[in-house]
Amino acid sequence: MWYYEKKLQYPVRVRDCNPRLAKYLIEQYGGADGELAAALRYLNQRYTIPNKVVGLLNDIGTEEFAHLEMIATMIYKLTKDATPEEMKKAGLAPHYANHDNALFYHNAAGAPFTATYIQAKGDPIADIYEDIAAEEKARATYQWLINISDDPEINDSLKFLREREVVHSQRFREAAQILIDDRGKKQFY
Amino acid sequence: MWYYEKKLQYPVRVRDCNPRLAKYLIEQYGGADGELAAALRYLNQRYTIPNKVVGLLNDIGTEEFAHLEMIATMIYKLTKDATPEEMKKAGLAPHYANHDNALFYHNAAGAPFTATYIQAKGDPIADIYEDIAAEEKARATYQWLINISDDPEINDSLKFLREREVVHSQRFREAAQILIDDRGKKQFY
Amino acid sequence: MWYYEKKLQYPVRVRDCNPRLAKYLIEQYGGADGELAAALRYLNQRYTIPNKVVGLLNDIGTEEFAHLEMIATMIYKLTKDATPEEMKKAGLAPHYANHDNALFYHNAAGAPFTATYIQAKGDPIADIYEDIAAEEKARATYQWLINISDDPEINDSLKFLREREVVHSQRFREAAQILIDDRGKKQFY
Amino acid sequence: MWYYEKKLQYPVRVRDCNPRLAKYLIEQYGGADGELAAALRYLNQRYTIPNKVVGLLNDIGTEEFAHLEMIATMIYKLTKDATPEEMKKAGLAPHYANHDNALFYHNAAGAPFTATYIQAKGDPIADIYEDIAAEEKARATYQWLINISDDPEINDSLKFLREREVVHSQRFREAAQILIDDRGKKQFY
Amino acid sequence: MWYYEKKLQYPVRVRDCNPRLAKYLIEQYGGADGELAAALRYLNQRYTIPNKVVGLLNDIGTEEFAHLEMIATMIYKLTKDATPEEMKKAGLAPHYANHDNALFYHNAAGAPFTATYIQAKGDPIADIYEDIAAEEKARATYQWLINISDDPEINDSLKFLREREVVHSQRFREAAQILIDDRGKKQFY
Amino acid sequence: MWYYEKKLQYPVRVRDCNPRLAKYLIEQYGGADGELAAALRYLNQRYTIPNKVVGLLNDIGTEEFAHLEMIATMIYKLTKDATPEEMKKAGLAPHYANHDNALFYHNAAGAPFTATYIQAKGDPIADIYEDIAAEEKARATYQWLINISDDPEINDSLKFLREREVVHSQRFREAAQILIDDRGKKQFY
Repeated sequence: MWYYEKKLQYPVRVRDCNPRLAKYLIEQYGGADGELAAALRYLNQRYTIPNKVVGLLNDIGTEEFAHLEMIATMIYKLTKDATPEEMKKAGLAPHYANHDNALFYHNAAGAPFTATYIQAKGDPIADIYEDIAAEEKARATYQWLINISDDPEINDSLKFLREREVVHSQRFREAAQILIDDRGKKQFY
Repeated sequence: MWYYEKKLQYPVRVRDCNPRLAKYLIEQYGGADGELAAALRYLNQRYTIPNKVVGLLNDIGTEEFAHLEMIATMIYKLTKDATPEEMKKAGLAPHYANHDNALFYHNAAGAPFTATYIQAKGDPIADIYEDIAAEEKARATYQWLINISDDPEINDSLKFLREREVVHSQRFREAAQILIDDRGKKQFY
Repeated sequence: MWYYEKKLQYPVRVRDCNPRLAKYLIEQYGGADGELAAALRYLNQRYTIPNKVVGLLNDIGTEEFAHLEMIATMIYKLTKDATPEEMKKAGLAPHYANHDNALFYHNAAGAPFTATYIQAKGDPIADIYEDIAAEEKARATYQWLINISDDPEINDSLKFLREREVVHSQRFREAAQILIDDRGKKQFY
Repeated sequence: MWYYEKKLQYPVRVRDCNPRLAKYLIEQYGGADGELAAALRYLNQRYTIPNKVVGLLNDIGTEEFAHLEMIATMIYKLTKDATPEEMKKAGLAPHYANHDNALFYHNAAGAPFTATYIQAKGDPIADIYEDIAAEEKARATYQWLINISDDPEINDSLKFLREREVVHSQRFREAAQILIDDRGKKQFY
Repeated sequence: MWYYEKKLQYPVRVRDCNPRLAKYLIEQYGGADGELAAALRYLNQRYTIPNKVVGLLNDIGTEEFAHLEMIATMIYKLTKDATPEEMKKAGLAPHYANHDNALFYHNAAGAPFTATYIQAKGDPIADIYEDIAAEEKARATYQWLINISDDPEINDSLKFLREREVVHSQRFREAAQILIDDRGKKQFY
Repeated sequence: MWYYEKKLQYPVRVRDCNPRLAKYLIEQYGGADGELAAALRYLNQRYTIPNKVVGLLNDIGTEEFAHLEMIATMIYKLTKDATPEEMKKAGLAPHYANHDNALFYHNAAGAPFTATYIQAKGDPIADIYEDIAAEEKARATYQWLINISDDPEINDSLKFLREREVVHSQRFREAAQILIDDRGKKQFY
């Protein structure tokens, strides 16, 4: 089980009320390669991955929830003072009509989060490559967001998150090697 | 952010390898009124609910993750020793073909989890009634699961979870009253 | 069964051709808390709710279809004279490319209607709280739409609809009380 | 708007409590070519179809709601006395875990209803062929249901519904001819 | 099986980098009546349609993949030189945040492709009307795209594709007649 | 564009009419890691992957369509002589009610195919790891299917397909190395 502490993994600051930027960032909240998808993927795979990798999945899955909270905080800070008129100007009227300034787990185009974004196969090699791919895709998304962001404070946080994905990808590659090496001793299939 | 401690909120024991029961329980893992839906709903609403209720949503949302872990543990324990043939006999061949004995966020019929199960409106009264309804629906699901379960050990855990939903529903009703009382002072919508 | 009479529950007038406003209003046509969701929810729950509440669900469910028709009429009147160029300027090119100026059951972001927006649990208390929550969420949506509408004629109709949701919420609360009182005599779950 | 009268378009009788048959019939409640899809398709197309065909769509759309009510009544009667154990034996445990013996808008496999089953193009010829195809598909579904039903009373109602789809298909073909003939005078697209 | 030859069925030229037009055209890539839906529908129905029509479905299904490739080429050419800033101006930031300038199978509003757009009933008449309707709907979509396109080179290709749909519709009508004539000899359903 | 030749990449033989096995195999037709997902993923990524890898994606994507045809042929042969009663006994009544003995793009649990199963990021490394993961997941699915299949003829074809996925995974790993090596010369991001 988890215990909550009221702090963020890394500080989140925003320069201005900027709902248009929030509209883009929501991709990493409820999108295909966002932090929710990441956390749910790893914590779910924990149960059937070989023991050597359980701790890694647990740690990274838990960290992704911290990232999800950072993204939520960014979106909240970028929109909390936005008037309905400012939401409209930012292209957020469809979101506002449904959710006011509240957050929701959809991607930047408004498609709701679905578990079909993620996978668990029971096969250790397949699962770990799913995870490596996930981290590379999350890294790419952070890059695209940095490219279209106009808030240097936000970009500081996004760069931190992008770097964490690079670290996670590296750690999953090491785990893949361990699993492949173990295959010599015990045939998976 | 959250810290993980390797313990369950309440013990989970299973009598036998029983994949058929696991097939039903997965409703509370990735189904419409399951623990994933609950946790994501409350933690997401935190950002825009009035301050007086933020702590409640945070506490219950975090607890729902502990419940999700209990459900995952039940499903895992009920299926971990099941052979492919036993999975077939339990009606789990469609799950097995896709996921082996790994878990996945779908409901008992195999429909993948979707964020459309939950809502956040930005309106405090609407959000808190969404939450009361969610707890009542989760309570009902636990009752239906208890009705069709044939494992008294599992039922012990399910009854614990059902009771927690009753407590949460009560706490959300109290929060609703607080929000309604405050409406006299400040108009919400 | 139902009989159709060619009249609206409440008059619908629009000031101008205004496809941008239509784009927002479609939230209440095919969105999560829209009139289609409401009508389908109540009419479906009719079959298993206790007898005392069947008539209420039937009446409100039937009325929600009248509301759906009002929303459809608004959208139609706001877009029927819009040229393709005007649809584009209003941000409706994605809708136009698929549907021309015809209506469709999607939300303001273009996500298609799904039955996962609604629920029926068989448990009377859970179902009636689902319904109270639905009305509160619909009320909130009407408020958000009024906030971003620039047509006072449309707002007149939206305010009528918002008030109906307040009345329905009140009636469902009364029904909840009846069901709770009856729980003393007969155990539901 | 619609007025409700408490009677069915055609009598619905069931021989026995038969949840397994209900499991199949739900295909026509919330499935791709079911009565909900039909009603919503026609009533939605009303707004932009040429005037000559509006009445036809309105009449058939309204009748499809009466069919939806007949299907709901069949499902309800086939399951209302089923115990949880009988629901399990009928393969309905996944439905029961989520909905008890209540109805829900999903297909026989448990996939929730989605508006993507239907279409409205604004082009009269395209829309009317969508409707002819819909009726032929509904007719086929009724045939498949009759083929696997073991209740002659239910089959009597299903045959009535199948025949209505044949009549609707014929009427839509006549409408197609009217629209094609009119194309000589006025270019649609 | 299929063999690939590196040529397009019909030339695709674009006047300018024009991501806004690409945003609309993607409707025919991953949308409800797009070329992917068409190809998958016909090739899937091949297996159970009467022998006389198998070749037609195979030919048209294969041709629709060629159309899918033409649409992909259009979208690619219209966006390949677009900067992130130009993607934003074109309303493509939600797509860019997720996919950079890569293509994806969603409709113009960003809703991901789903097989629920298509159908196969096993009944020859139902299936062939599904196909006629599909071609008419695709024709309509091409018309709406031509109406909002501002690139005459693209429109040349779109007109070619629209005409192919007209031809396909005609061929499916002929097949319907063959199937109806055969019904005298052998009862389908 | 593609040319069709009426032959299969590898022979498909079935021992018996065996609809229950068909029910499992459909996982590789319309499921998350099935052949449709594979073909669509690679052919879509072709447009924006670096030139050195385009041919590989084109070749493998085209081959996956041949695999899709093999799977379709298996399902067809296993079900073509099944009576409605045999479909029911095999747990295929939900499929039959909707599709008769026709095929459809859903997974073994009946969830319809969705493009959210696949991804294209525009980032070469992310895309190629998506592809490696896809092949490993497809390999695992073939293993699970072989484990629950009771037809040695089908297993012969499934083993061929499993081996092809191993080869594809190896070729994508080589491509990953090429892309990583090129990163020295040109920084992707």
